[in-house]
Amino acid sequence: MDSLREKIGFPYTQMPTDFMTYGVGGLADTASLCGAINGAAAAMTLVLGKDDWKKIVKELVNWYTKTPFPSDISNQYAKDHKFLVEKYKSDKVFVSSVSRSTLCHVSVTKWCKASGYASGSDERSERCGRLTADVAAQAVVLLNQFADKNFKAVTASPASAECVPCHSLGKDYKLGQYTRGEEDCVLCHTPHEIKK
Amino acid sequence: MDSLREKIGFPYTQMPTDFMTYGVGGLADTASLCGAINGAAAAMTLVLGKDDWKKIVKELVNWYTKTPFPSDISNQYAKDHKFLVEKYKSDKVFVSSVSRSTLCHVSVTKWCKASGYASGSDERSERCGRLTADVAAQAVVLLNQFADKNFKAVTASPASAECVPCHSLGKDYKLGQYTRGEEDCVLCHTPHEIKK
Repeated sequence: MDSLREKIGFPYTQMPTDFMTYGVGGLADTASLCGAINGAAAAMTLVLGKDDWKKIVKELVNWYTKTPFPSDISNQYAKDHKFLVEKYKSDKVFVSSVSRSTLCHVSVTKWCKASGYASGSDERSERCGRLTADVAAQAVVLLNQFADKNFKAVTASPASAECVPCHSLGKDYKLGQYTRGEEDCVLCHTPHEIKK
Repeated sequence: MDSLREKIGFPYTQMPTDFMTYGVGGLADTASLCGAINGAAAAMTLVLGKDDWKKIVKELVNWYTKTPFPSDISNQYAKDHKFLVEKYKSDKVFVSSVSRSTLCHVSVTKWCKASGYASGSDERSERCGRLTADVAAQAVVLLNQFADKNFKAVTASPASAECVPCHSLGKDYKLGQYTRGEEDCVLCHTPHEIKK
């Protein structure tokens, strides 16, 4: 949003954005939806408008679930103190992890387990800062692809291919369409035998 | 937001809100965070400002996880065609369900199972409309409590009291603080014996 204000100016100079801080810590520190996704999706939708936003935001969401965070680039930026911040909570290079989920709870837990850092550590907080930079950068990549007319959705959701044919948004309750979802099903559910 | 524009005017008349449609279907139809929470939290934070928003938004989130939706009031409004819409996907009185989660996936699944309606049915879609009305109304209740200086956080998160002492945001990895979260732990996790 700062870049839009600088490069384009009006109407982005009129738009308050501080209120988006409600996304912090997975929405008011409840560890629900990752705030990096929430903020990026808001900015993207504001720019893209009502006809084009959905497929591009959805691509960002799916990409998020399958990308190792922090990226090599953001690790390097932190090591070299090249981010636009004065103080670093840590400038170490961190291990990366893939969340297969949009949730702060899952994303943080997987990274803590991969790295050995506690959830309340400065390193975990720094990791989420780098992740946010990675997501903001990818949002710009996707917006530029759209502007250049070469956007193509390329990432599937992490939902299990075996589950979706029955357990998805639809009108057939008996088939299993009493749900909707695009997270990784087996993160929370135990697979069952499929009746043929 | 429409009420703020009508009753207060500037600066709310300057604020675009169409972009918040990205929250639809749990964010771009991915069934992650319920869009009713996302939209209400955005409006509340915009009004409350940076010093006061968090505890009040968090109260809304926790209230959401424990409230039966749709409420009796919104069922009655739909039955009597008193909502500000011209067409109803259904004007039947629905059964209600409590989600114990902020997630569209969980909220929709629990209601489909309670009601017997499929996730892609008009009734499910109408149910989410009524839920959104209920959440918007509660956001106004909480904002008015704050304005009247009698806001008090009264709802705990649905996280299990047994889990939180070890598995929460903190600096002690070995104790179990490699995670953060305020959803209902046992929705996805199997409880283990606690070592004393």
